[in-house]
Amino acid sequence: MDSGRFDVHSANGYGQAWRTKTDTGGAPVTTYGFLGLGIMGSAMAANLARSGFEVVVWNRTPEKAAPLVSLGARRGEIPREVVATCDITFAMLADPAAVEAVCAGPDGALAGVGSGHDFINMSTVDDITSCAISDAVVERGGRFLEAPVTGTKQPAEEGTLAILAAGDESLFEAAAPAFDVMGKTALYLGAVGNGARMKLVVNAIMSGVLTALCEGMALGLKSGLDGEQVLQVIDAGAFANPMFRAKGRLMLDRNYPTSFPLKHTQKDLRLAVELSERSGQPLHCIAAVNEIFKRARVTGHGDEDISAVFEAIR
Amino acid sequence: MDSGRFDVHSANGYGQAWRTKTDTGGAPVTTYGFLGLGIMGSAMAANLARSGFEVVVWNRTPEKAAPLVSLGARRGEIPREVVATCDITFAMLADPAAVEAVCAGPDGALAGVGSGHDFINMSTVDDITSCAISDAVVERGGRFLEAPVTGTKQPAEEGTLAILAAGDESLFEAAAPAFDVMGKTALYLGAVGNGARMKLVVNAIMSGVLTALCEGMALGLKSGLDGEQVLQVIDAGAFANPMFRAKGRLMLDRNYPTSFPLKHTQKDLRLAVELSERSGQPLHCIAAVNEIFKRARVTGHGDEDISAVFEAIR
Amino acid sequence: MDSGRFDVHSANGYGQAWRTKTDTGGAPVTTYGFLGLGIMGSAMAANLARSGFEVVVWNRTPEKAAPLVSLGARRGEIPREVVATCDITFAMLADPAAVEAVCAGPDGALAGVGSGHDFINMSTVDDITSCAISDAVVERGGRFLEAPVTGTKQPAEEGTLAILAAGDESLFEAAAPAFDVMGKTALYLGAVGNGARMKLVVNAIMSGVLTALCEGMALGLKSGLDGEQVLQVIDAGAFANPMFRAKGRLMLDRNYPTSFPLKHTQKDLRLAVELSERSGQPLHCIAAVNEIFKRARVTGHGDEDISAVFEAIR
Amino acid sequence: MDSGRFDVHSANGYGQAWRTKTDTGGAPVTTYGFLGLGIMGSAMAANLARSGFEVVVWNRTPEKAAPLVSLGARRGEIPREVVATCDITFAMLADPAAVEAVCAGPDGALAGVGSGHDFINMSTVDDITSCAISDAVVERGGRFLEAPVTGTKQPAEEGTLAILAAGDESLFEAAAPAFDVMGKTALYLGAVGNGARMKLVVNAIMSGVLTALCEGMALGLKSGLDGEQVLQVIDAGAFANPMFRAKGRLMLDRNYPTSFPLKHTQKDLRLAVELSERSGQPLHCIAAVNEIFKRARVTGHGDEDISAVFEAIR
Repeated sequence: MDSGRFDVHSANGYGQAWRTKTDTGGAPVTTYGFLGLGIMGSAMAANLARSGFEVVVWNRTPEKAAPLVSLGARRGEIPREVVATCDITFAMLADPAAVEAVCAGPDGALAGVGSGHDFINMSTVDDITSCAISDAVVERGGRFLEAPVTGTKQPAEEGTLAILAAGDESLFEAAAPAFDVMGKTALYLGAVGNGARMKLVVNAIMSGVLTALCEGMALGLKSGLDGEQVLQVIDAGAFANPMFRAKGRLMLDRNYPTSFPLKHTQKDLRLAVELSERSGQPLHCIAAVNEIFKRARVTGHGDEDISAVFEAIR
Repeated sequence: MDSGRFDVHSANGYGQAWRTKTDTGGAPVTTYGFLGLGIMGSAMAANLARSGFEVVVWNRTPEKAAPLVSLGARRGEIPREVVATCDITFAMLADPAAVEAVCAGPDGALAGVGSGHDFINMSTVDDITSCAISDAVVERGGRFLEAPVTGTKQPAEEGTLAILAAGDESLFEAAAPAFDVMGKTALYLGAVGNGARMKLVVNAIMSGVLTALCEGMALGLKSGLDGEQVLQVIDAGAFANPMFRAKGRLMLDRNYPTSFPLKHTQKDLRLAVELSERSGQPLHCIAAVNEIFKRARVTGHGDEDISAVFEAIR
Repeated sequence: MDSGRFDVHSANGYGQAWRTKTDTGGAPVTTYGFLGLGIMGSAMAANLARSGFEVVVWNRTPEKAAPLVSLGARRGEIPREVVATCDITFAMLADPAAVEAVCAGPDGALAGVGSGHDFINMSTVDDITSCAISDAVVERGGRFLEAPVTGTKQPAEEGTLAILAAGDESLFEAAAPAFDVMGKTALYLGAVGNGARMKLVVNAIMSGVLTALCEGMALGLKSGLDGEQVLQVIDAGAFANPMFRAKGRLMLDRNYPTSFPLKHTQKDLRLAVELSERSGQPLHCIAAVNEIFKRARVTGHGDEDISAVFEAIR
Repeated sequence: MDSGRFDVHSANGYGQAWRTKTDTGGAPVTTYGFLGLGIMGSAMAANLARSGFEVVVWNRTPEKAAPLVSLGARRGEIPREVVATCDITFAMLADPAAVEAVCAGPDGALAGVGSGHDFINMSTVDDITSCAISDAVVERGGRFLEAPVTGTKQPAEEGTLAILAAGDESLFEAAAPAFDVMGKTALYLGAVGNGARMKLVVNAIMSGVLTALCEGMALGLKSGLDGEQVLQVIDAGAFANPMFRAKGRLMLDRNYPTSFPLKHTQKDLRLAVELSERSGQPLHCIAAVNEIFKRARVTGHGDEDISAVFEAIR
């Protein structure tokens, strides 16, 4: 995807628009904390460190901090200390339970929050959890952003994530230099919860889009068409897209190396179906897709790539 | 969409691959007939005439032939005469009933078919009808291709249709200069019926893809997100595509100027659901989409653009 | 099911209400023809013959007439002769193609139709075919009823079918003595086509009802409940019904002796989904059920009982 | 529904079978507590008191106890005291939050539990909540049963509820005299959680069954059938049931006086869809039904009777 695409959007105005890569110039004036050094967090923190920012990192199993230290980062002892020491601390943890474990308690991240010590959660959590963290941060005098990302390992390493930020807009501005390094684009979405909801919405659409391809491909193959040609015709049309090129190939090969685990997508579908109830928006198509994904999990494809949903259809 | 994309495909080999624009060079050695001068047919025949081919045109209401005549085409009196006079005759008619009306009877197109007088039906008909026409043509000593197109008025005028050809491969080769003028690409799909089935498959996928966008957008709006931002996030992701950009805009404006009528798409969905029964491939998602499109028709959106399905969801 | 149930309905008035068994008394004043002596037709014609009516029977393979002849029926040579000889002729044939074959041609049933020689088609055909036959009969001066039945072999033998009649109401009255012998109840539904549509509607509901049981049972078993107890709880509730008792047992035994073939039900579901399009009534649930039945067919259960849809769910 | 039906089941053996009304004879040897005097609880406790049992009642708003006191019950001050005073205490509260509020804290029901002071929760809660209460009761030396009921106000008043008990089997035996008074039947389902799950399963089937009727009825009406006749034909068939008679009438009248609120059914559908994920059993049909019920809620029918789902379909 060419970066030029976002020049158009950036013309919409700052804060409402996708922020594109800018030359941040000069030395960093901010110290960043980073909690959570899994596959995603390690890559993101590394990009911060490589860009010359002052970074303090922490991970539950401390040995994962070593590669970051070799890039110039400092290792923090406990989450509270990291937050209390840094201007802005990012968290990138596996799931809501991990986020709560890192935030809570006397050594937890929240204990370090205060004026000038802000907190940005980039881990994916549901909107209710996110609002609870936000309340706790604000109560302690800090600023809060939720900032989940779309994109997986490779974009994290390349600093080309899409960052879906919501919460305190002044903190969004303050964190711009870091977002520039970690992501291709960062969008400010308004109130806390909107980041979580946007991610659900986009993932639900993605699952529906992919399922439509799978069903159409299955129908084509069963009715005598050549799968390669189905992909060619799609690729010549108005809804041609990179995902169909990549995942369509996996389907024809019936080989699904995991870039995004199917079971995580199904979890997002469940959350979208629940959100639809709270929001008063029935989802006939997405609910059907959810059941198809459940069937894919039941038949043993949960740990394969999302494209393995094809196996539950064909 | 840049034509460069198809250079890759053409490397797959002739006949199996998308054919890209080529310099046909020299004067045409073939006389083409063209039956049906509606919106699509007029534009396609005009492109043939403008390219210097010898063209004989016919339309039920003969006044529609005038613009073509002014481009150098000759007007035929009856379909039989057109076919009997020309080397290859194309038909581009509104529906299966029109195709049968033009083909049958003593003045009909089939009566003119014979060795050296071949027939290519570019109208969209179901696979069973297509096979019946093919049998009749072959019986008379002619060659037959079905060659439905994806794309609407604008691509027809610009000569950038995608042509899905199936049937006699030697006729596909012989018609290549004409296909080059009418379409951006032409794909040879094998046995008669595959063209009709490919079109159904691709349209079913398109409908599913669009419905996923609609449901996700509706969920986003109902749960407090900004619709523009939903489109922005999608457009930054792996399934960004031109259709989402165009149709997403229509949804947010809730204004659906017709480029492809919703009712035609629903008809294709019905045919896909029927094909799925014959092919032994259940379609849980596409069947749900079909019902959503029915609801859009029932609530008065059948003549609007396909994107008006959003009104049956939100 | 006790016959007492229908006493209530008969109180609603003649013609609009279910007709219950009555003492027809005296000798028959009518000669009945009967075309088609398959499983259903043989049983129905036998009931007519045993009741003392004068009956003329015909079957494509004439040896099937022997048992009827031994009950006092006369064998007709060709459908035309049967119709021309009898006051009212019934047809009970396998499918629309068989009905058309028996009706058409110089020896066909329609050729015998005229004033005083009426035709009642009890075979199941779609509403469009039924209207076509009706037009042909009326054109020849005869009266027409469509009268499909609900119920299978055993009710046919016991004379307890439910007869769904539509068309000429005076013929409905005239055929009352015969309907009394063949069915438990006969309902007059109005214009031709309503019988066919009623049957589709009731079969679609039946399929949905059964699928709901199957999915609930599958959920219960997978979540640790005892299947027998699920059936017990249902049988104590407001939607307890004989079908759930019978088919629930088959599901738990996973053994599906055919009383109504699954593939026929799926065909009716397809027709209901098509009728829903023509009628402007989307069917989200029934369409989903249709796909589940398709899956049951694809996985080899088409010739088993309708209850084998459980195998496509569990 | 005649009680004779259950004689058959009782022949299956005690404890596994539905328990039918028995003559308990003699004076009660047990003191029963009853927490929660809403519509259901008041009726159930009144049946206990009228049968001559010693009953201690408690309600958050104490004035609701007056009618029970006039029937001979004693009023307890706090849940703890009721449980500590009685041999077996029943709870019938509005929702899981109310159950937790009544159970927890120094004055709560759990604080009164101990050997000889057992607890039976008849309120409907999810299986996870039920297991948590069970653990707490057992830890304190008491016995626990979950015993949700199917049936609403009228069966509660008439003592004809169906009781779905799960947990300690010896407590099920001990509570038999009380269950005999409150319910028509009581079934022992095994481990705690099975009662909650059975109720979800049966309600999911009920919703699916009712939705199939609604869609079929809507199709019938739109295609020209008479709604009364649709009900008549169904009522003559193998899946005739009391619910269709009662709810079918409401649909034709398009008037839905609430006996079971639609929104509660939708909540149960959501829980069933969630249970299906945990249990590994995809539910294509029930998931579609859930979305239809959501649409009924969104369009303002949540507080009407479950049969108002027809309004979201027609």
